[in-house]
Amino acid sequence: MRYTNCFIPTLKETPSDAEVVSHQLMLRAGMIRKLAAGIYNYLPLGLRSIRKVETIVREEMDRAGAIELLMPSVQPAELWQESTRWEQYGKELLRFKDRKDAEFCLGPTHEEVVTDIVRREVKSYRQMPFNLYQIQTKFRDEIRPRFGLMRGREFIMKDAYSFDVDSSASDLSYDKMYQAYRRIFQRCGLRFRAVEADTGSIGGSSSHEFMVLADSGEDAIVSCTQCEYAANVEKAEARPAPAEHAEPRPLEKVETPAKRSVEEVTAFLGIPSSALVKTLLVVADGTPVAALVRGDHDLNEIKLKHLLGCETLEMANEEMVTRVTGAPVGFAGPVGLNIKIVADLAVQGMKNFVTGANAGDLHLKNVTIGRDVTPTQYADIRNVVHGDPCPRCEAGHLELWRGIEVGHVFKLGTKYSEALRATYLDADGKEQTIFMGCYGIGISRTVAACIEQNHDADGIIFPIPIAPFHCIVSAVNTKDAEVMAACESLYRDLGAAGVEVLFDDRDERPGIKFKDADLIGIPLRLVVGSKNLADGKMELKTRRTGEVELLPLADAVEKIRSIVAEALGR
Amino acid sequence: MRYTNCFIPTLKETPSDAEVVSHQLMLRAGMIRKLAAGIYNYLPLGLRSIRKVETIVREEMDRAGAIELLMPSVQPAELWQESTRWEQYGKELLRFKDRKDAEFCLGPTHEEVVTDIVRREVKSYRQMPFNLYQIQTKFRDEIRPRFGLMRGREFIMKDAYSFDVDSSASDLSYDKMYQAYRRIFQRCGLRFRAVEADTGSIGGSSSHEFMVLADSGEDAIVSCTQCEYAANVEKAEARPAPAEHAEPRPLEKVETPAKRSVEEVTAFLGIPSSALVKTLLVVADGTPVAALVRGDHDLNEIKLKHLLGCETLEMANEEMVTRVTGAPVGFAGPVGLNIKIVADLAVQGMKNFVTGANAGDLHLKNVTIGRDVTPTQYADIRNVVHGDPCPRCEAGHLELWRGIEVGHVFKLGTKYSEALRATYLDADGKEQTIFMGCYGIGISRTVAACIEQNHDADGIIFPIPIAPFHCIVSAVNTKDAEVMAACESLYRDLGAAGVEVLFDDRDERPGIKFKDADLIGIPLRLVVGSKNLADGKMELKTRRTGEVELLPLADAVEKIRSIVAEALGR
Repeated sequence: MRYTNCFIPTLKETPSDAEVVSHQLMLRAGMIRKLAAGIYNYLPLGLRSIRKVETIVREEMDRAGAIELLMPSVQPAELWQESTRWEQYGKELLRFKDRKDAEFCLGPTHEEVVTDIVRREVKSYRQMPFNLYQIQTKFRDEIRPRFGLMRGREFIMKDAYSFDVDSSASDLSYDKMYQAYRRIFQRCGLRFRAVEADTGSIGGSSSHEFMVLADSGEDAIVSCTQCEYAANVEKAEARPAPAEHAEPRPLEKVETPAKRSVEEVTAFLGIPSSALVKTLLVVADGTPVAALVRGDHDLNEIKLKHLLGCETLEMANEEMVTRVTGAPVGFAGPVGLNIKIVADLAVQGMKNFVTGANAGDLHLKNVTIGRDVTPTQYADIRNVVHGDPCPRCEAGHLELWRGIEVGHVFKLGTKYSEALRATYLDADGKEQTIFMGCYGIGISRTVAACIEQNHDADGIIFPIPIAPFHCIVSAVNTKDAEVMAACESLYRDLGAAGVEVLFDDRDERPGIKFKDADLIGIPLRLVVGSKNLADGKMELKTRRTGEVELLPLADAVEKIRSIVAEALGR
Repeated sequence: MRYTNCFIPTLKETPSDAEVVSHQLMLRAGMIRKLAAGIYNYLPLGLRSIRKVETIVREEMDRAGAIELLMPSVQPAELWQESTRWEQYGKELLRFKDRKDAEFCLGPTHEEVVTDIVRREVKSYRQMPFNLYQIQTKFRDEIRPRFGLMRGREFIMKDAYSFDVDSSASDLSYDKMYQAYRRIFQRCGLRFRAVEADTGSIGGSSSHEFMVLADSGEDAIVSCTQCEYAANVEKAEARPAPAEHAEPRPLEKVETPAKRSVEEVTAFLGIPSSALVKTLLVVADGTPVAALVRGDHDLNEIKLKHLLGCETLEMANEEMVTRVTGAPVGFAGPVGLNIKIVADLAVQGMKNFVTGANAGDLHLKNVTIGRDVTPTQYADIRNVVHGDPCPRCEAGHLELWRGIEVGHVFKLGTKYSEALRATYLDADGKEQTIFMGCYGIGISRTVAACIEQNHDADGIIFPIPIAPFHCIVSAVNTKDAEVMAACESLYRDLGAAGVEVLFDDRDERPGIKFKDADLIGIPLRLVVGSKNLADGKMELKTRRTGEVELLPLADAVEKIRSIVAEALGR
């Protein structure tokens, strides 16, 4: 495509309302424009990258045997009432009435609709397994839409749903999707991890998230240095710590005037934070519970919630802390506490540690598990930290990463098929409930995550497979007929060789062209100037490395073609 | 694709709630399923045809130099208020509030959004011309959604918008789109007409509709037997009739007891309906007007409305008729009538005709224009009829067709750019208003219109370019290993030759397979059976003609490939 026939409104300045780099760069590169909070126009360059991701996703879904269909955005309330999500979903579900006062919502996901299709058509076990997918525009009325395409309200998603006769068949369908997702993100050219994840409100028994690694990622994830283990920090398992061999010393009270936080107390007492145990008071379905975690660890509320099997879990407020401990906030401790006490596995076997004394300005020293405190229960209730031993293998330890969730696969079991009565007759003619899985990829979000991972001070650095164009041909001087003729023939020949070329035919200074090329992140740049051309050469710059080489005119097309073909795995 | 790995839930019975043939057949062929009134799931077969149309549209839009982008479905009220359509659009515009009580609508069209994008980015005449298009899901809250995809509420549309410096430049952009649309519908393999049309509520100065010809079409259109002229009946121009040379006879009153309609009066008096003039009373912005049209012609209210330049035009009610004519309904006539009288051109010069006498049970005979009646104005205010002379050429006459509107192109002028202040600086640095055009194609509707045009008692007859598959390979006996081996190799080799094959590998009787193949309308059917196979042959059936031929096994792939290539214009 010729630059002058494309609509690429680049910006010199970073828009003031864009907080994260992908948002800034997509605005600056003319890829998106905001229409309303969390609602964006995808301009031609942005759409091209989105379509690249779509195509890779479609090819891999088809290869995995999934079948494409397209379900509506506007969904009737009745189906959501059947699944009980009409009540449960909260305000993210945008609801409205049509002209006849019938209730509808804008689909944030399609479990109900797809289950409704399947329950009407599937009668027999012989019709399964199958997997239906779509690439479709979704809407979630986020309370704080922000970060551009990273957390928009209207976005493009691929969602797939598998239907199987039983749990083990469903596991196979899940594994196919898991493998397809690995191929998808590999083919996109992204660094990513597939991590074990909590199933959250979607429900089901098992789940993996696909995380694009980026320092700016909202999610903390871990992976093992030796084995395949990787998990979201919410889910990552901690091993029990080995017991300490020290001799217990006598329990002591120490004055800690106005020292409340771990940092304040340990600094004041001159001890490492791992020698202190935090006593965190939470309220689980209305009942106070004390959670003990080591001073250098963080409580994982999701693990604690699962452990307690409660509907709601929140940190106790000041009034509750005072009522339960008899002391102001900052001095809670387990000794003498008359409520349920859950201790983290790392606290099990600890000796001679410091805790609050349940009295203002006082802490206890040399507290010892078993002698001074007997927790109700030990469990893994903390976040893992960098360097923790791997829970799966003997050799490795955990590394921490930041990640951006771009895909999520769930084993749903019979959650939706039971609610909507999607059943089939088995080989014995007996009615059985269908097992489902659901599998999502944020298509538009993947492009934003790619930019979070791949950029520098000059702009975006697209991997070739999802770049809007593979190559940009920049004419240094559009007034020079020979330069323009060389560019035209490059443009034509590269196109014929299957390379997607943006031909910067604008009558602009080279500096402006190069800045724009860097900003929009085209992986390969061919510069055609009078001087090099006189020597039968042109300049190839690789955006990612910054490397520049002079190529003989005759070699350029084949060189670029082979770089692109290799990146696309052709 | 293998039939057993596709999701094609065909139905034996015609669903009782489907009124038109495309709706019936798309349901029966497993192409669509209803989710709610006017809201459909596109199942895999239906989506494949939709995608075929999308691809043809995209290729032709790109070829015409239009640039693809994607705008949101959810649009803020503010833009629609700026264009004043928030008030004007009526209930088809589905409106709602988000969680923060901000007002939005589901986009039925995107003039406002695209003009908003352009007004922010375009500063100079040098940035034009350009044309932005998208393929996107739209929503119109139709009062009576029906006929399946023919009049749905949620549907897929291609909409394009051109931006030009002035009216003549805009004409060129319009013409490019007009030509692109002709190519699109030709490539889809449809019989169609491009007809002059009224611009309706979208506004603008000129417009063409693209009509797929089908007996079931909602729209009446005409085309000339000799020249290129074609128009929607709403818009089609009538020529003045030659004056009659008969001698005027004396005006007479005749009793016509209880004879009110044209049929009743002409039968009673024994005259042709062309010898009677109807006097139709309408109310234009509150004022009564009489419209005279020949008994065998129909009043065209749109033409009359344009002529009178009124906002509202409706037929007078009984009370108004009695008040104006002093007679009951059915006996109105122009003689002695004291209101504005508009006569159709065909009435000009008429002599000795019959009209109502403005008195109950009485008509007038031998009424003569000029002598008995002097209309305020003569104008073309009727619908053309079959056989009318062409308004453009001397030789041709008009043929009537039924059509289904699948595309519509408009010259918008400055309607939206003025309302939203989309301006640019011209070469002299003077601010000017941008000229726009808009261009729509109903993608999902085109598939339905195709079926209305192409079907028989057995099912759909898809043209090859938009068939879900080009060819179906039917194994007569799946238990016969040689048959299956031959099918597998056909399936593989046809696929490698670029032919899209549905391989009916189901363990079903041939009769069921053939019925389904006919129903879903795959253009070419290869039947592989044991007996023919023993002779090294297989059967090729062409769906449209019903022709069957025996092909040598060795020739089948090349034969099919060449038929498909020719149909696709490769």
